Amino acid sequence: MGRWAPDSRGRLARIAFALFAEKGFDETTSAEIAEAAGLTERTFFRHFADKRDVLFYAVPLAAGRLAERIAEAPAEVAPIEAVTEAIAAMCGDFQEEPELARQRHRVIASSPALQERELAKHEELARAIAAALVARGVDPTPARACGAVGIAAFRVAFPAWCAQRRVKGADLPETFRQTMAAFRAAVAEAR
Amino acid sequence: MGRWAPDSRGRLARIAFALFAEKGFDETTSAEIAEAAGLTERTFFRHFADKRDVLFYAVPLAAGRLAERIAEAPAEVAPIEAVTEAIAAMCGDFQEEPELARQRHRVIASSPALQERELAKHEELARAIAAALVARGVDPTPARACGAVGIAAFRVAFPAWCAQRRVKGADLPETFRQTMAAFRAAVAEAR
Repeated sequence: MGRWAPDSRGRLARIAFALFAEKGFDETTSAEIAEAAGLTERTFFRHFADKRDVLFYAVPLAAGRLAERIAEAPAEVAPIEAVTEAIAAMCGDFQEEPELARQRHRVIASSPALQERELAKHEELARAIAAALVARGVDPTPARACGAVGIAAFRVAFPAWCAQRRVKGADLPETFRQTMAAFRAAVAEAR
Repeated sequence: MGRWAPDSRGRLARIAFALFAEKGFDETTSAEIAEAAGLTERTFFRHFADKRDVLFYAVPLAAGRLAERIAEAPAEVAPIEAVTEAIAAMCGDFQEEPELARQRHRVIASSPALQERELAKHEELARAIAAALVARGVDPTPARACGAVGIAAFRVAFPAWCAQRRVKGADLPETFRQTMAAFRAAVAEAR
């Protein structure tokens, strides 16, 4: 199953992303999104607080899935490895609908205010990862380290993947794993 | 020299932080800050865009100093070590006026909106660090790794230091170095 569940919210989000990418975020109204989906604006507001919420509504779902995947990792797996695999799996989710992921990225990249909000949402993911590790018995500071490094590597890998032209040839989980390996090597470097 | 230069802006910031901490950020007006400083509100607005700007005006100064310190590190120093020492030196700057640093922290911790802005400012510091490393010939991805890890460790160490009661006994550079060592160990952990 992809990140974007095939429910009403997912369907509205798909339509919204396409409109944002086509017309621009500021130029698209919630009424237009609802109309394009064949719904009333009132129905739109039953699913989303506002049009900005459309861009970020799936973050708690992603955070929950990261936490589940970390909880499910075998006990002998090192925290940083559990985090790497959980984020790589999230990358696999995104990759199931690459155009959707790229549309969303382009919209956010077009606005400093949206970028700031995305940064805050990524911090939520990092904290969800840390909390899931603490629930596995990891101390808080190394847990925060693993969450912060994993999400920072994702923040490098994801735009790099989005910028690649040939969607089919570019593998997001692999791009992420390579970035993570480079991050770990840079941080581990001996004195 | 501390982070808070003894100029008009620094003096206004000191007075503002004390008022924010005493009365609350929302309850303090720019007019009150100006009055407490013996200045007109117009003068206040010559130095700051608004009262929120007072909390963050020194971030570009801190970013510039981090970049300078990284540029000055001997060529044989590993990037992650150069970053550790540059941030530890920034911690030393903050520690010169511990009550000021703590007042500012309390104000920001009281407001999710200010926390989000602080997060964005910390991202600016991480990117300034990465840019300074790239200028030393480090590849962009490991440069981003060092910036992200250094600032993430600072974001753990600084609140921990602020929470410590005995100001004189708590050493911020040392707290940061220990956090950084724990971060590096967590990320380096062998497969």
